[in-house]
Amino acid sequence: MTNSLRITGATRLYAIVGDPIVQVRSPETFTERFAAAGVNAVLVPAQVPVERFDEVIPALMALGNLDGLLVTVPFKARMRPFASRLGAAAECIGAVNALRREVDGSWTGDMFDGQGFVRGVERKGERIRGRRVLMFGAGGAGSAIACALAGAGVESIAIIDPDAGRVEALADALHNAFPDCNVAAASSKAADVDMIVNASPVGMRPGDGMPGDVGPLSADTLVGDVVISDSPTALIQHGLANGCRCVNGHDMHSGQIEAIMNFFAPESPPVSGVVSR
Amino acid sequence: MTNSLRITGATRLYAIVGDPIVQVRSPETFTERFAAAGVNAVLVPAQVPVERFDEVIPALMALGNLDGLLVTVPFKARMRPFASRLGAAAECIGAVNALRREVDGSWTGDMFDGQGFVRGVERKGERIRGRRVLMFGAGGAGSAIACALAGAGVESIAIIDPDAGRVEALADALHNAFPDCNVAAASSKAADVDMIVNASPVGMRPGDGMPGDVGPLSADTLVGDVVISDSPTALIQHGLANGCRCVNGHDMHSGQIEAIMNFFAPESPPVSGVVSR
Repeated sequence: MTNSLRITGATRLYAIVGDPIVQVRSPETFTERFAAAGVNAVLVPAQVPVERFDEVIPALMALGNLDGLLVTVPFKARMRPFASRLGAAAECIGAVNALRREVDGSWTGDMFDGQGFVRGVERKGERIRGRRVLMFGAGGAGSAIACALAGAGVESIAIIDPDAGRVEALADALHNAFPDCNVAAASSKAADVDMIVNASPVGMRPGDGMPGDVGPLSADTLVGDVVISDSPTALIQHGLANGCRCVNGHDMHSGQIEAIMNFFAPESPPVSGVVSR
Repeated sequence: MTNSLRITGATRLYAIVGDPIVQVRSPETFTERFAAAGVNAVLVPAQVPVERFDEVIPALMALGNLDGLLVTVPFKARMRPFASRLGAAAECIGAVNALRREVDGSWTGDMFDGQGFVRGVERKGERIRGRRVLMFGAGGAGSAIACALAGAGVESIAIIDPDAGRVEALADALHNAFPDCNVAAASSKAADVDMIVNASPVGMRPGDGMPGDVGPLSADTLVGDVVISDSPTALIQHGLANGCRCVNGHDMHSGQIEAIMNFFAPESPPVSGVVSR
């Protein structure tokens, strides 16, 4: 037993709420980050039964020493009304995956699932603004990434998803929030695409192939894949074989942790023109 | 950062509820005990605003990965109705300082403030059964200790406290719960007393003297004091000077931690005749 990580009466709490909860990695990751930053805080798992969500969440938020919440399946959309105010991504997507208590006791919520991808791209030194994106998947991850990409200034997003209804809903939401970004349903890759993102589950199972036909790629195409796996997915392999810069699920995950840590405990006040949205 | 204490998605939660909470020592103590026992669990502080207690407690108890609660000021009496069943001490005192979730999801509550004193005495190898006790203080600590002593078989308890009403209430409660124990209000020490306990706050402040006149003591008198201090209280000094065995606040505190750890995670099923109450 060492004293490197101690929980005292003065320790500030963060919790990740979900059901089930045993699979989450955030308690380990964020508790280590807090310790590394010299902050006396821990992030604990909180398994909230679905049928008691609306009663448990306000009670957790009433704890005087709880400073933030992370939200995972199946609560990201249900958490939205509990925030006093929403960031642009949460507003657009209608879901929240992190909340922080402000000095006045109110709660700010935002959605970082897509912000992690944007940070992952930026960390590779790649440009996002002006890109013409082809995206596979219009579910939770796809919506969050599309929203973050639109916020970061991509020129267009073409979305391929078997569920036409959810593509339409996402396109409408993006159009309202980011009228300058050209969003449309697609069925195949257009010639001028220079960014391809897989936000579908294809690639999660061993033996999965490509999320769809992307044809040959020029080396200036940026390839992204949300799937977290030990070996490169078929899409990432294809990108690498064509000399493309690639952003994988691990890059996105690291980017999200960094973005949320900055949201929970900003190292310095936001400076106009530096914050991405 | 070492890995000796990690919080993961599978970590089980315990919380201490109170307001204020920064002063509590239990998070550090119990989290270390869990780690030492190889149990993946932590005890975190939870500051519950007084006005939201009745709403927050059921919500905390609804968390699927929360296995136990400790209760401190000002909630020990208010917590009682939230337990599905009570141990004898909690029943007698009307207050609870620890609850655990049972396998069937119900909650058992009990009061260990006095049990810690009894364990402290037992650890010194001293007999409790048959003792004739003089006790100073009929507040929370005094009530809990009197109840634990009666449960452990003392012959009589004489109580000195300036508040006659609370002495009477305590005597009535003890009489109902432990009819074989002779409990009465007192104003001075009787000749046959062979155990003296200070459960009043006298001794907490530097310069405090004795909690009352105890006269000369024979060496077979057991002396106890709830006050936790770096140097011996006047009562403990008097006991030591008379060759008495003494139990101080630190002994009581250690005894309580041990009793609660055993309550939270019994190492073996209780065996009839071994459990003290």
